[in-house]
This record gives sequence, structure tokens and C-alpha cells, in this order.
Amino acid sequence: MRHVISVLVENHFGVLTRIAGMFSSRGFNIDSLAVGETTDPTISRITIVSHGDDSVIEQIVKQLRKLVDVIRVQDITKESHIERELVLAKVKCAKETRAEIMQMVSIFRARIVDVSSESLVIELVGTQDRIRALLELLDPYGILEVAKTGAIGLARGPQHLKV
Amino acid sequence: MRHVISVLVENHFGVLTRIAGMFSSRGFNIDSLAVGETTDPTISRITIVSHGDDSVIEQIVKQLRKLVDVIRVQDITKESHIERELVLAKVKCAKETRAEIMQMVSIFRARIVDVSSESLVIELVGTQDRIRALLELLDPYGILEVAKTGAIGLARGPQHLKV
Repeated sequence: MRHVISVLVENHFGVLTRIAGMFSSRGFNIDSLAVGETTDPTISRITIVSHGDDSVIEQIVKQLRKLVDVIRVQDITKESHIERELVLAKVKCAKETRAEIMQMVSIFRARIVDVSSESLVIELVGTQDRIRALLELLDPYGILEVAKTGAIGLARGPQHLKV
Repeated sequence: MRHVISVLVENHFGVLTRIAGMFSSRGFNIDSLAVGETTDPTISRITIVSHGDDSVIEQIVKQLRKLVDVIRVQDITKESHIERELVLAKVKCAKETRAEIMQMVSIFRARIVDVSSESLVIELVGTQDRIRALLELLDPYGILEVAKTGAIGLARGPQHLKV
């Protein structure tokens, strides 16, 4: 099963290496990983998406909790939650195809953030499926480059990870 | 100086651990890191933001290029580029403050993606500064939780990292 794991950490050297190492040493691939500061600059939040057997992921979560500099770990897939990721996609685009591409961008409520005579850069926020759908539609035009953030997520409602 | 580094990698176990380790072993903190698949599922793109002396970052870039499973490395800060990150912020919100918060959300062209009787979840894409500005405005209401993706970036124009 796919798991989205939120980890609050002290912003110290090497904490990311230890966390990534915890997954790779168990032969678990990380599908995506996003790290960003919280409102407290000494604390970062890491969101990891991984596939695997529920019981093994549960073991990893327990092991993560024991790591130095790890404050809180939550498998948010167990709860009702919101998940989003961001993509920037550079697509080949000539005069003749620009109107078609702009139509798709508008249907997906995406945004065009750069334009040249031969290319466009499109920004889209959404779930994994929504982003995949847009990229599939853009594929025939020629996708030159894609940068994705990996998913982040928050549990719905007022509950939250406390430091 | 702040550097945004794009790394194309083969999607193998341990590549993330090796890359993160390269920074931490040199005493460089990673401000943010985002990993996501490209359109080719065997290849991921890692975007790393780090602060440091230009010549040391240049050394790290050279070392990264030598790592197993690393295909391409580019310091995109050297070129004209687009940079975006995504944040989900859960904010305390009662009936009395909802209209005020919704006003700010609209000014920032952010979106409300969850609502409960005591809280809202707001989604915003933008540059680091824009996201910081919104979070500062929301702070007095009480920010319960924040998840940020870390920045991703693409060079402007049709040029792109080739596999």
C-alpha cells in the first residue's frame, strides 16, 4: 500500500541522510520526498511517500521515532487527509499549437509561468492523478523537462502534529 | 549565496542517501529538498536548495556528478529561471475571523482546500518570499500546522537537462 509519512525534525546536519538511510537499508524505495522549514526555522517537516507492506512501514515508523533529531512521525494515510503536489513542466510549443495547449491549461486550472517562441512552462498543483492526467495530455506535444515536488499532506480538521 | 541545484538520477535504492550524505559530510545544510519522478519512471529529479560559498558549492556539484546513478547536475541559480514552492497551512479560524482570512487568501490567489468549524487549510504556490508573506499575515490567527514542499525550478526558455 502507498503510505504518506510526515516527520517533524530538528533542523540539524545529517538528519535527512539518516532518515533516507533508514528506508534504503531496508530495501524500501522512496517514491517522493519533500523537505521544507516550518514556521519555526529550527524545525523542518519531511513528507515521504513510499509503497510497501503495512506491517513493514509500521516498523519503519517506529524506527524513525527513535532517531536523533526526530520529533514526531505520523502515517497520515491512516486518516482523512489532503494531499497535494506541484509540477513545473516545460512543453514544446509553436504558434500553431499554443491555443490548444492553453485550452488544456485552462481546463486544469493550471498556469503558464514562462513562454518562449518554442516552449511554455506550465505550473500545476493537484493530486498525483490530476498531475499525471495533464502530463499525459501534454505528452504528444513534447515534454522537454519536468520538475515535481513530491507530495505533501495534512490531516483534515483541526488536529495537528504538536512539537 | 543561495543555490538551487537540479539533479537527474536513476531511480535506485540509496541514491538519495548518497546525495544527502554528500552535503552533510561537508557540513552543508540542505535548506530544502524535493524529489519527484520525471515522465520516465526510472528517472527522478531532485531539487536541492543550499546556502554556501560559491566555490564550495561548485565542488559539491562536481562531486555529485561522480556519484553512481547521477545522470546530470545543474546549478540553475546561474541562469534565468523559474522557482516555485507549494505550502499547505492549517490555520485556526472561527466564524468571526473567516471573512478576514478569506480576503487574504483571495488577494494571494491562494485556495482553501479544507474547512472545519475551528480551522481552514490553505494551499499556496509561489516563490519563497510570497509564501513567507502569507504565513506572516496568517500568524496572528494561529497557524496550527505547515507542510512545505521545498522549491523546484526550471531554466527559462527552451533549454533543458537532457538525459
